[in-house]
Amino acid sequence: MHKSRLGTVIIDCQTDDLEREARFWGAALGGRVPTGEASGRYLDITGDAADPHVILQKVEHPSWIHIDIETDDIDAEVRRLEGLGAILVEKMERWTIMEAPSKHRFCIIGVCRDGFDEKANLWE
Amino acid sequence: MHKSRLGTVIIDCQTDDLEREARFWGAALGGRVPTGEASGRYLDITGDAADPHVILQKVEHPSWIHIDIETDDIDAEVRRLEGLGAILVEKMERWTIMEAPSKHRFCIIGVCRDGFDEKANLWE
Repeated sequence: MHKSRLGTVIIDCQTDDLEREARFWGAALGGRVPTGEASGRYLDITGDAADPHVILQKVEHPSWIHIDIETDDIDAEVRRLEGLGAILVEKMERWTIMEAPSKHRFCIIGVCRDGFDEKANLWE
Repeated sequence: MHKSRLGTVIIDCQTDDLEREARFWGAALGGRVPTGEASGRYLDITGDAADPHVILQKVEHPSWIHIDIETDDIDAEVRRLEGLGAILVEKMERWTIMEAPSKHRFCIIGVCRDGFDEKANLWE
């Protein structure tokens, strides 16, 4: 048995100034706007801790948005989703990239937001 | 004064079978999978009512994901976001399409999910 649910909304930005994009999205969504981390690839503008996290990621590919599914067992969740028709694209150290039948790419990550134990979906 | 927050995650699908895509995403995210609405343009696979809704939309443009901001005052929210640097793309009857400085398009919609009054961000 394991659990999973929608964990994160990743705003992938092809940009030369991730901090500028984060200022907008942080203000738009009522999230915090971290500073001093602009050299990094990620900026977390999460607002309400109970909501899915919203993270900006600096990317080389065109800008888009993707989602992460958080789970307490990445391998089991990948197998479950393969059974539903998703394809494993790449297994990274801390997450796994998959592709849905609809061709959207998404990631499977560890538990990241509050309330997981009580609220996540249980898969037997 | 008005309020707003992240309201919906829209999985835009360029597909000939929206119901098939909804079966996957509903099973993946633990949401309900509505049937008998496949002639429509939208399928709501929302799981936990307190989370942002997840809706599949049949589109002609390439598949991607966009977000909606829910608000109790669309006009005021559009003005607020214009002040932050977003551009008004098109005003529809029930929602307004905007474009962020990061070039992501998103929509401003009415209140759609549980807990809005208590949890949404208040803008003075």
